[in-house]
Amino acid sequence: MLFKNIDILCEGGLAEANRCVGVAGDRIAYIGAEAPAEDFGEIYEGAGRLLMPAFFNAHAHSPMTLLRGYGENLKLQDWLTTRIFPFEDRLTGEDVYAGTLLAIAESLRFGIVSTTDMYYFCEDMLRAFVESGAKVNISRGITCFTDAELADLEGFKEAKRLFETYDGAADGRVKAEMSLHAEYTSNPKIAAGLAAYANGVGAGMHIHISETKAEHEACMARHGGKTPVAHLASLGFFETRTTAAHCVHVTEEDMDILARKGVTVASCPVSNMKLSSGVCDVPRLLEKGVNVAIGTDGAASNNSLNFIEEMKFFALANKLARRDPTLVSPADTIRAATVGGAKSQGRTDCGAIRVGAKADLIVLDLSVPNMRPVHELANNIVYAASGSDVRLTMADGKVLYRDGVYTTIDIEKALFAADRATERICEELNRA
Amino acid sequence: MLFKNIDILCEGGLAEANRCVGVAGDRIAYIGAEAPAEDFGEIYEGAGRLLMPAFFNAHAHSPMTLLRGYGENLKLQDWLTTRIFPFEDRLTGEDVYAGTLLAIAESLRFGIVSTTDMYYFCEDMLRAFVESGAKVNISRGITCFTDAELADLEGFKEAKRLFETYDGAADGRVKAEMSLHAEYTSNPKIAAGLAAYANGVGAGMHIHISETKAEHEACMARHGGKTPVAHLASLGFFETRTTAAHCVHVTEEDMDILARKGVTVASCPVSNMKLSSGVCDVPRLLEKGVNVAIGTDGAASNNSLNFIEEMKFFALANKLARRDPTLVSPADTIRAATVGGAKSQGRTDCGAIRVGAKADLIVLDLSVPNMRPVHELANNIVYAASGSDVRLTMADGKVLYRDGVYTTIDIEKALFAADRATERICEELNRA
Repeated sequence: MLFKNIDILCEGGLAEANRCVGVAGDRIAYIGAEAPAEDFGEIYEGAGRLLMPAFFNAHAHSPMTLLRGYGENLKLQDWLTTRIFPFEDRLTGEDVYAGTLLAIAESLRFGIVSTTDMYYFCEDMLRAFVESGAKVNISRGITCFTDAELADLEGFKEAKRLFETYDGAADGRVKAEMSLHAEYTSNPKIAAGLAAYANGVGAGMHIHISETKAEHEACMARHGGKTPVAHLASLGFFETRTTAAHCVHVTEEDMDILARKGVTVASCPVSNMKLSSGVCDVPRLLEKGVNVAIGTDGAASNNSLNFIEEMKFFALANKLARRDPTLVSPADTIRAATVGGAKSQGRTDCGAIRVGAKADLIVLDLSVPNMRPVHELANNIVYAASGSDVRLTMADGKVLYRDGVYTTIDIEKALFAADRATERICEELNRA
Repeated sequence: MLFKNIDILCEGGLAEANRCVGVAGDRIAYIGAEAPAEDFGEIYEGAGRLLMPAFFNAHAHSPMTLLRGYGENLKLQDWLTTRIFPFEDRLTGEDVYAGTLLAIAESLRFGIVSTTDMYYFCEDMLRAFVESGAKVNISRGITCFTDAELADLEGFKEAKRLFETYDGAADGRVKAEMSLHAEYTSNPKIAAGLAAYANGVGAGMHIHISETKAEHEACMARHGGKTPVAHLASLGFFETRTTAAHCVHVTEEDMDILARKGVTVASCPVSNMKLSSGVCDVPRLLEKGVNVAIGTDGAASNNSLNFIEEMKFFALANKLARRDPTLVSPADTIRAATVGGAKSQGRTDCGAIRVGAKADLIVLDLSVPNMRPVHELANNIVYAASGSDVRLTMADGKVLYRDGVYTTIDIEKALFAADRATERICEELNRA
């Protein structure tokens, strides 16, 4: 495909007008002011539109779309025990497939091409990701409330099988990682064992850290004053590429460890606000040189996967929390949403418009009133765009979504399947 | 028009499926499960869609769309003095008309039919509102930094002329009100004089109150410990229908006065977060029985007029600020965005789907992945909808926007005019 006469968003947040961008195979092959000599196939007329890097969602639980709006206005513990856990207990592999496909459809509509995901029934999730052409860093979240050995946990067996079978599958679109759900849903033996396994095989790691104050403080009480970050570091964590979700309550010393170890913090501002957990201190993390990315978390606590909206929350939550409107600029925000997320996923050839990079691109409509006038395009993208102003989403050079139409997903069937799965589970819960 | 087979959102936030809603003239004339005997003209096939009350924007400065993204990442005082005021100094009446028409186009796209607006060049603003068919409570914001008499202020002359000439115009779509910009941009003589005039003629009043801590505390220092609310009350304010914008720093006693006097608080969560002003305590205001509405503020500090996004910020900002996820439910939020706003504007026959009410309605698309599944529709509307999922916006029974098309606005011309006005002003500023 050749995008013609289109504005492009360059690294650093600045825009260039009226460019031509050629995509060959899965890569960006040409960027220039003039039409190229080569034939790139279909010509996309880009006047009044912006081509920018697609979004990389650094923390999600895709199948939880089925629980969108199911448990509302509850305290975290009530939310989990009275709504989320009973619903999840009823999920089958087919339900998880349906919920994942719904999440992918929504993600593509909002410009997300790649998702760092932690859940279970991961092979059912993978089916949906591979069929759709979207990218995923998938992991089976491991919990353990007994004194069992790691090797005996069904979750670990699934995680190991995923890693051995699927890491690098679908032309690298699939990466399989390890994930410890969290410090407080496991124990040191399991945590240390999982870290040792990941370090040994070089698997990425994904974990929830210090989402709530209660969780952060309980860890310190359990482990001689050690914060979750310090405790996990002492157990061998952070030695492979790691994404730490939330990090709302991390300390200065925790941030230093995260910076030194090259850990990515996946901030989930909407979920953290909705559950009243607090605000991850993004400006301080950036000052310390931590790679910061953005996650939607699951649709049960968001309740959408609207990444443009998430960017606005990301910037504004920090301005509010630190009472300083100069913090977290649109350029910082776009960087976290694109190249920061791609880096967290080990996708270092993604997240920017650059010759040779993977063609993970979206087209935003600039002809809608909320995007005019343009003083600086990055400001309008982060603060004024509406999620559904995404007109095209491309992953690895392939158009997956365009003007409301999906090229790889039968959307009617997907919506129907997600509705039916949800209804069946609700009926079971009502009967129980 | 007859909406058929459409879900409707009733008062209290509950939905009913598969209803027929007939609109005759400017009013809702029929609601039922069966198709009515009467002929309502065009049939709108509503399967997979939701009909709900349109939004009432309780605090805005429409022409500031021209400053969208112009002054970013600045402290409030720098923002005003280095960016906003110099730009505003260059505005002509034609610029204000262009900016207002752009704001109306954006508002209609996001489901807003009526706006409480404070600015200047108000007759140019009115032209845009009247042509477009949208509703407005318009007021000339009055400031005074000298010891002039109220009667001699050009702003007051304009305000008086507006009220005398246009209040109730365009079949009641236009209401003209008084507005004191704020306590700190005026003096007690002017404030008392304006209140006396409004009380005498029964004009509505619109004012910024306690947006920032600095402004709130400076008033107390100036006026013997009196807060802006207490000080203004002592000058005769709040005796007519009044909208108090922001109220981020009001005290318990202030809230009691606002409740007793029937003042509406127009909370502007996005603007207050973006400028780091704080969070208006909506749950406490609601407990005290204050009518709470939602405002976008101007696009210079928002930077959009996306009311669905504003609703999500409204709920989440309060959950975060009070560290309590049970506060400000979707039903509370929808009420503030619709009937709360309508009430603040003195439009008591608007804001709900009810036979006899004005047909101020929007259609939301429920067939998009982010709106599925539906556990409870109000949750999806507030937390999962995307602004541009509004498919139709109707004011007083007239369709003003439908599937991207405006029936009263030449959108190409409007976008062009707003761009040109902005460019001219920026060129003047660059030369100066």
